[in-house]
Amino acid sequence: VSDSLRDIGEFGLIQRLVGRFAGAPGVIVGPGDDCAVISLGHHYALATADMLVEGRHFDLRWSDPVDVGFKALSCNVSDVAAMGGKPLFALVSLGAPADTSVTLLEQLYSGIAEAAVEFGVAIIGGDTVASDVLTISVALLGEPTEDGPVLRSAAMPGDALCVTGELGAAAAAVKLLRAGEQDQRALELLARVPTLADAHRRGRARVREGIAAAHAVAHAMIDISDGLLQDVGHICDASGVGVAIDSTAIPVAAGVADAAELLGVSNPALDGGDDYELAIAIDAALVEALRGAMHPTPLSMIGVFTQEPGMRIDGAPVSAVGWDHFKDSP
Amino acid sequence: VSDSLRDIGEFGLIQRLVGRFAGAPGVIVGPGDDCAVISLGHHYALATADMLVEGRHFDLRWSDPVDVGFKALSCNVSDVAAMGGKPLFALVSLGAPADTSVTLLEQLYSGIAEAAVEFGVAIIGGDTVASDVLTISVALLGEPTEDGPVLRSAAMPGDALCVTGELGAAAAAVKLLRAGEQDQRALELLARVPTLADAHRRGRARVREGIAAAHAVAHAMIDISDGLLQDVGHICDASGVGVAIDSTAIPVAAGVADAAELLGVSNPALDGGDDYELAIAIDAALVEALRGAMHPTPLSMIGVFTQEPGMRIDGAPVSAVGWDHFKDSP
Repeated sequence: VSDSLRDIGEFGLIQRLVGRFAGAPGVIVGPGDDCAVISLGHHYALATADMLVEGRHFDLRWSDPVDVGFKALSCNVSDVAAMGGKPLFALVSLGAPADTSVTLLEQLYSGIAEAAVEFGVAIIGGDTVASDVLTISVALLGEPTEDGPVLRSAAMPGDALCVTGELGAAAAAVKLLRAGEQDQRALELLARVPTLADAHRRGRARVREGIAAAHAVAHAMIDISDGLLQDVGHICDASGVGVAIDSTAIPVAAGVADAAELLGVSNPALDGGDDYELAIAIDAALVEALRGAMHPTPLSMIGVFTQEPGMRIDGAPVSAVGWDHFKDSP
Repeated sequence: VSDSLRDIGEFGLIQRLVGRFAGAPGVIVGPGDDCAVISLGHHYALATADMLVEGRHFDLRWSDPVDVGFKALSCNVSDVAAMGGKPLFALVSLGAPADTSVTLLEQLYSGIAEAAVEFGVAIIGGDTVASDVLTISVALLGEPTEDGPVLRSAAMPGDALCVTGELGAAAAAVKLLRAGEQDQRALELLARVPTLADAHRRGRARVREGIAAAHAVAHAMIDISDGLLQDVGHICDASGVGVAIDSTAIPVAAGVADAAELLGVSNPALDGGDDYELAIAIDAALVEALRGAMHPTPLSMIGVFTQEPGMRIDGAPVSAVGWDHFKDSP
């Protein structure tokens, strides 16, 4: 009996497939980090790609096409930010049904263009093809600063675990929007805390903050778009360390705890995904300096990396749960 | 009333969208050629992307997943070849239904890996997501040789129009496979001329030949994956020239004329698409030298570029017909 994708999940698939592509000239960091690091003419470049599918990553019932376009580029920019790099060039491929209105596509591209301007990215090409499902596939090239790329794999025991911004709002908003089809209270909460839906609509990659972290010699960094626990788990796995998190220090965005209580779900700030914030491992003595460099973006120290493997919150072991494209899909 | 993609077609869409992305620092050649040419750290790089969708670009009823994977990379490599460049690094994003068998995906990746080895490409990352439609999106980076990239836009009146290889086999094979569901004679022709189906299954990008053309100072080059007439039309439009083609000089692959006659369709060597051959504009005095450099790959001189705009075959005007993803899709 053959396994299906649902059985092994996204990360199972990646593990089975990535091995065959390891090690090649010019590849400094291959698959498995936020970006690949490659050598092009004695110069390092960063490369990453993300594919967004209607009904999986966005829903045009709730999202304006301009926002979807913005996010399609921004989520790639976030991967470059998580290496402490600067985004430069993007290829945008689009699959769309033949009866898609051109107006919708122009709005989508307006959002992409808006993000391109905001993050200083040039759109250099791509592809447009027919597909039954609206699909946006972006590949982004960037470059590390002179401080070099920050990988996932060099967190050290004793390092502080810090996160930028506030967490959980985007994932809470999606859950509330879905629940709102049945439950008026969910819509009321969204109306009362507009920052929830804002976080879902846009998602601003932390480029300036990532560069500041690289300059402050952060040991490891990741964007937490798959959820705080899962992504910090990736740092732990790649670095061979554990982490002890203090739940009271987690910067939960306004309305997120209310949403979790209303819906009877776990806290989206821990496992929600869709947060384009950075989790950073850095020498604890340097946290204050980094906080100053990032101002006015908040930087919260939420835990300490440990020699002992595994993740703990307030002393209790937790697993690295978060979004899995194949296991969690509707 | 809003236009749909079907109304304006792929090239109409590209025209409407590309304008907003023109001109940015570091972008030597933006959207509209086979590859973008970018400047990364005082070094030129080539970048291109293609998206393949099941039921549009490939059909697993007729194609082995290994072949589909091979072609997904090869068609991108062909775009780098058409700039006279060398392919280097690829990002591969995959959208697949959650019930897709892992065996099928491993076969797909085996084909990608096989092409990667053949063309010297390192797979450096990508994305895997859930989608209702199997979708493969590849972004490829390469570099021009010291001879520089060969664009579409510098063909000169008097230049020879040359093509590599033999044309029409892949498109003829697809038409025969489709017809074969009703018509036994189509399957018999495929069995009698196995090179037809071979051309459809694989499609070998002409990297060595593209580099030879760049070294021979070709003025313009394109890969003819959208069909000879359409792609030569792109050279004419971009260069501001016309072309006079001699139909008897077109290297039509074995079985293609028989297929066109059997099926009652126009000659796939002219408008079929899916040929990963190169069309080259080069000083007529240099054709012999280029032919020698390309040996044993055939190089056929099939026409002459003209000051007078428009395309002619044996003196009769023709339009640049070929594949359009939105107008031609099933």
